[in-house]
Amino acid sequence: MDERLWEGNVRKVVPYTPGEQPKVLDVVKLNTNENPYPPSPLVKKALEEYDYNRMRLYPDTNSTVLVDALAEKYGVSTSEIFVGVGSDDVISMAFLTFFNSDKPIFFPDVTYSFYDVWADVYKIPYEKQPLDDNYRIVPEDYKKKNGGIIFPNPNAPTGVLESLETIEDIIKANPDVIVMIDEAYVDFGGESCIPLTKKYDNLLVIQTFSKSRSMAGMRIGYAIGNEKLIKYLNDVKFSINSYTMNPLSQICGAMAVKDDEYFMECNRKIIATREKTMERLEKLGFIFTDSKSNFIFAEHKTVDADHIFNELKNRRIFVRHWNAPRISNRLRITVGTDGEMDILITALDEIIGNYGKE
Amino acid sequence: MDERLWEGNVRKVVPYTPGEQPKVLDVVKLNTNENPYPPSPLVKKALEEYDYNRMRLYPDTNSTVLVDALAEKYGVSTSEIFVGVGSDDVISMAFLTFFNSDKPIFFPDVTYSFYDVWADVYKIPYEKQPLDDNYRIVPEDYKKKNGGIIFPNPNAPTGVLESLETIEDIIKANPDVIVMIDEAYVDFGGESCIPLTKKYDNLLVIQTFSKSRSMAGMRIGYAIGNEKLIKYLNDVKFSINSYTMNPLSQICGAMAVKDDEYFMECNRKIIATREKTMERLEKLGFIFTDSKSNFIFAEHKTVDADHIFNELKNRRIFVRHWNAPRISNRLRITVGTDGEMDILITALDEIIGNYGKE
Repeated sequence: MDERLWEGNVRKVVPYTPGEQPKVLDVVKLNTNENPYPPSPLVKKALEEYDYNRMRLYPDTNSTVLVDALAEKYGVSTSEIFVGVGSDDVISMAFLTFFNSDKPIFFPDVTYSFYDVWADVYKIPYEKQPLDDNYRIVPEDYKKKNGGIIFPNPNAPTGVLESLETIEDIIKANPDVIVMIDEAYVDFGGESCIPLTKKYDNLLVIQTFSKSRSMAGMRIGYAIGNEKLIKYLNDVKFSINSYTMNPLSQICGAMAVKDDEYFMECNRKIIATREKTMERLEKLGFIFTDSKSNFIFAEHKTVDADHIFNELKNRRIFVRHWNAPRISNRLRITVGTDGEMDILITALDEIIGNYGKE
Repeated sequence: MDERLWEGNVRKVVPYTPGEQPKVLDVVKLNTNENPYPPSPLVKKALEEYDYNRMRLYPDTNSTVLVDALAEKYGVSTSEIFVGVGSDDVISMAFLTFFNSDKPIFFPDVTYSFYDVWADVYKIPYEKQPLDDNYRIVPEDYKKKNGGIIFPNPNAPTGVLESLETIEDIIKANPDVIVMIDEAYVDFGGESCIPLTKKYDNLLVIQTFSKSRSMAGMRIGYAIGNEKLIKYLNDVKFSINSYTMNPLSQICGAMAVKDDEYFMECNRKIIATREKTMERLEKLGFIFTDSKSNFIFAEHKTVDADHIFNELKNRRIFVRHWNAPRISNRLRITVGTDGEMDILITALDEIIGNYGKE
């Protein structure tokens, strides 16, 4: 397309590329870390009971029903919770609100690929800190002067979990900036640092309903931190879009939180499937990190990731692969049901067995 | 609360204050321009047929079903449509994308009170252009050097409609910036400038499902413009939150668009109620603009707006009032059902009759 007169005034960015969402239904979808189990039956009930006439009204700007449920679940006050349209909305808003310094923000070189995209769109300077050879964070790297810190725990796409001691060490060294811990995958075997928010007023913990609560479609994320942080976040949110979360997400989200038993049961199943799948992958010649998430970050000893990725895709099995430094020979495989893992393992067995023979 | 060490790095803003959302149900709610009629019955059906199991999956990032329905309705290509979580989300994203100049953007002094909030949060310079004494836009004001232009048509909270000629005149004079026309209320008697997007590649038209489509709760807004504008908007959107719109909003939204007959019927009813209510208000001593929206912007000849506002509130009737220059003696009254208007008129008759006697 031609260059137009107004182009000089446009903010131009290289957008984030999300994992493929295949239009056909008969695929094994292990590429976007969705939960293989449906949401709680209480969610179904809430959906059925919703009176569609209420759609004509603006939603509750404070998402009271959802915030109340989260406050009870996590033992914090409602003034310590911020909710948004998925954790991407929450983190994006937190970048805009808290990463407002001239000094660079820090995050790992191998991590959620949205961080540098947000930094670019909001013109926030950043500096990536390299993980060590085992994909672990080097705490000393985060003790230099900076404008803020963010990393996921467990990290994505590695699945590696850092201890609360490591996190506390980093928070302590940075009292003058906000430290954000993105706990998208923490429910699959990690320990949350939410309790540390009582001790450190510069800690913001972000979680999501997209993975462990089986509600990626309903776009619900939240942040927990001291009430002053939450107030600043809400001020910015109310300066961008006062009414972000629709009533169905609010009500269904609250019901999902209330059904703690179902939640724990699904998490247990996914962890069991993950551990079993790891054993089977090991026998096929894969190496991987000790993932505490709902995905496995695997590399084959002899077969290229790129080859496996394409062969799986030919068999309608979708996993994730990045042509990025340090991880280009890795595959990120979402933990599905046991049945889905059987299909995956059978396919991998075939792909690896055939390798070099064609 | 005490000042913390990290406060210097926080983006601090004065947020937008939305109209009150009373928690109790037995009120006459004429303060946020919601539609008094429910959404199309096709929306109800779509909600009932939705399989809650699908919630576990991420939504279609392109909102294909909704964009397709809008493209058909407005006779444009799908690449000329951008959708967001309410028109606030769309406009906010458009500010960030297109108002990226050092020169001030222009909008009226009396207009939607979110424009200066967005400009502040994104650090966009702006200059308000005064409406004339009849709350009309003065086109010459918009022919000075600027970084972009936005106004609603019909304007809010005045309800005043500008002609397509006036709008075309302004667009023609500004080929080097983006001109945004916010048509939140256009379905209640205005003429849309969507056809002008074929002629001017710097025009972006924004509409919403919150008013004429009775779906404020589901948070759906959209912009129509040439495909290059839409591409830039999508690039920024995909740099902030790839998955913004949940599948229920996408499906229900598409169904609302398909039911054109129901949509036209509700609009006709609201227009008829507005005209009838204006006659009755005139008899009570009110003056008002010739509103082409679903609200009436009224001032009483002798009784203060503030007094009427509070007396209505005492009677559980909510309207909107701003303590802002040039409009502090006005009330913005949403057009509800005929029954709600009867309650309003009875109350106003009493309030005005009692005035000075207490």
